[in-house]
Amino acid sequence: MKVNKKAVQRLFHYKNLLLRLQEDGVTRIYSDTLAERLGVTSSQVRKDFSLFNIKGNKKAGYVIGELVDRMDEIFRNDVPRRVVIVGYGRIGSALANYNGFHKQNIEVCAAFDIDPAKIAPHGAVPVYHLNDLKTVVGDTGAQIGILAVPERVAQESYRLMADAGIAGVLNFAPIILSPIAGCMVTSYCVEGELNSLMFAVDQQGEQG
Amino acid sequence: MKVNKKAVQRLFHYKNLLLRLQEDGVTRIYSDTLAERLGVTSSQVRKDFSLFNIKGNKKAGYVIGELVDRMDEIFRNDVPRRVVIVGYGRIGSALANYNGFHKQNIEVCAAFDIDPAKIAPHGAVPVYHLNDLKTVVGDTGAQIGILAVPERVAQESYRLMADAGIAGVLNFAPIILSPIAGCMVTSYCVEGELNSLMFAVDQQGEQG
Repeated sequence: MKVNKKAVQRLFHYKNLLLRLQEDGVTRIYSDTLAERLGVTSSQVRKDFSLFNIKGNKKAGYVIGELVDRMDEIFRNDVPRRVVIVGYGRIGSALANYNGFHKQNIEVCAAFDIDPAKIAPHGAVPVYHLNDLKTVVGDTGAQIGILAVPERVAQESYRLMADAGIAGVLNFAPIILSPIAGCMVTSYCVEGELNSLMFAVDQQGEQG
Repeated sequence: MKVNKKAVQRLFHYKNLLLRLQEDGVTRIYSDTLAERLGVTSSQVRKDFSLFNIKGNKKAGYVIGELVDRMDEIFRNDVPRRVVIVGYGRIGSALANYNGFHKQNIEVCAAFDIDPAKIAPHGAVPVYHLNDLKTVVGDTGAQIGILAVPERVAQESYRLMADAGIAGVLNFAPIILSPIAGCMVTSYCVEGELNSLMFAVDQQGEQG
């Protein structure tokens, strides 16, 4: 199955909405309602469902429980997914303790830093020295890593993660990393996003 | 000037690299070097520079100080840009104290929450009750807001920000917000991004 990232992200948002509806006691939903709530067309919803081989009865609507189960299967959220965090500063520690991961069955199993003051191997999320990365990744079987270190050491830290056997990295350092074979990377730069937003707001102001 | 978001983000990364080079004492750079360091083609760099009306001498290279000044002008980083944060939980408080903003002349001037235990109007970043949003936004002139509240109250909080006069919102709640006229919104969902990354890693594993 070859699907693009946007479809995966839409599917994730469908699932999130379905979980909220389930909490509210709703059991069935039509693709039209789902589409309306998420600001997409209902043909888009049906196209996405067909792409991921999600079946339903168009007339009677979808059973929410079945949709959620199928989505958990697709995302493999039925088993906990282990994630490590490299860099235990403000962003790293906020993410290590972020409530939103539990619902997605994402478990931050360890964090790493080079600052001795931050090392705490017995905390709720254990924090180890970066030297222990390879051993801990091997022991925990974590495949995914979050990179939250200063930009000057980001490329080197990414290399260490790839060497340790991490297969995918979500990078928050404000730098474009040179890709390393066998370890894909996706970056998000909050100051860059704010700059883009400010630029767009300025442009609108000039036109308005 | 009509430019797309990707070009703005590339320009931001050019600027970040130039600032690092400046710190290292480098004063001139060729577009080829800039391109190589950022993993883009040098014709892309020249195209981007021409789009933003950045001039240089191809043979002698660009003077880094001049490039940075021009980029600060484009991003209006020469004056501090004020940002408010709505939601002072783990993500909100991490961003309120994030070191990376200072370098971009972004100033988090206030944060807001509804939890009385979090209100602290005399901190380094003052934290006010959400009821004070409109007054504080009016007083500070902040145009941009970061939204870091639970997903169930995200749409309502976004509406309050729009009402208060915020022109652009960076949303971290894992939900697609219905757009409100006059207040553009960009969303980032860390659990969604992790899910996408896991999905891509799984697919690669199946193919490999």
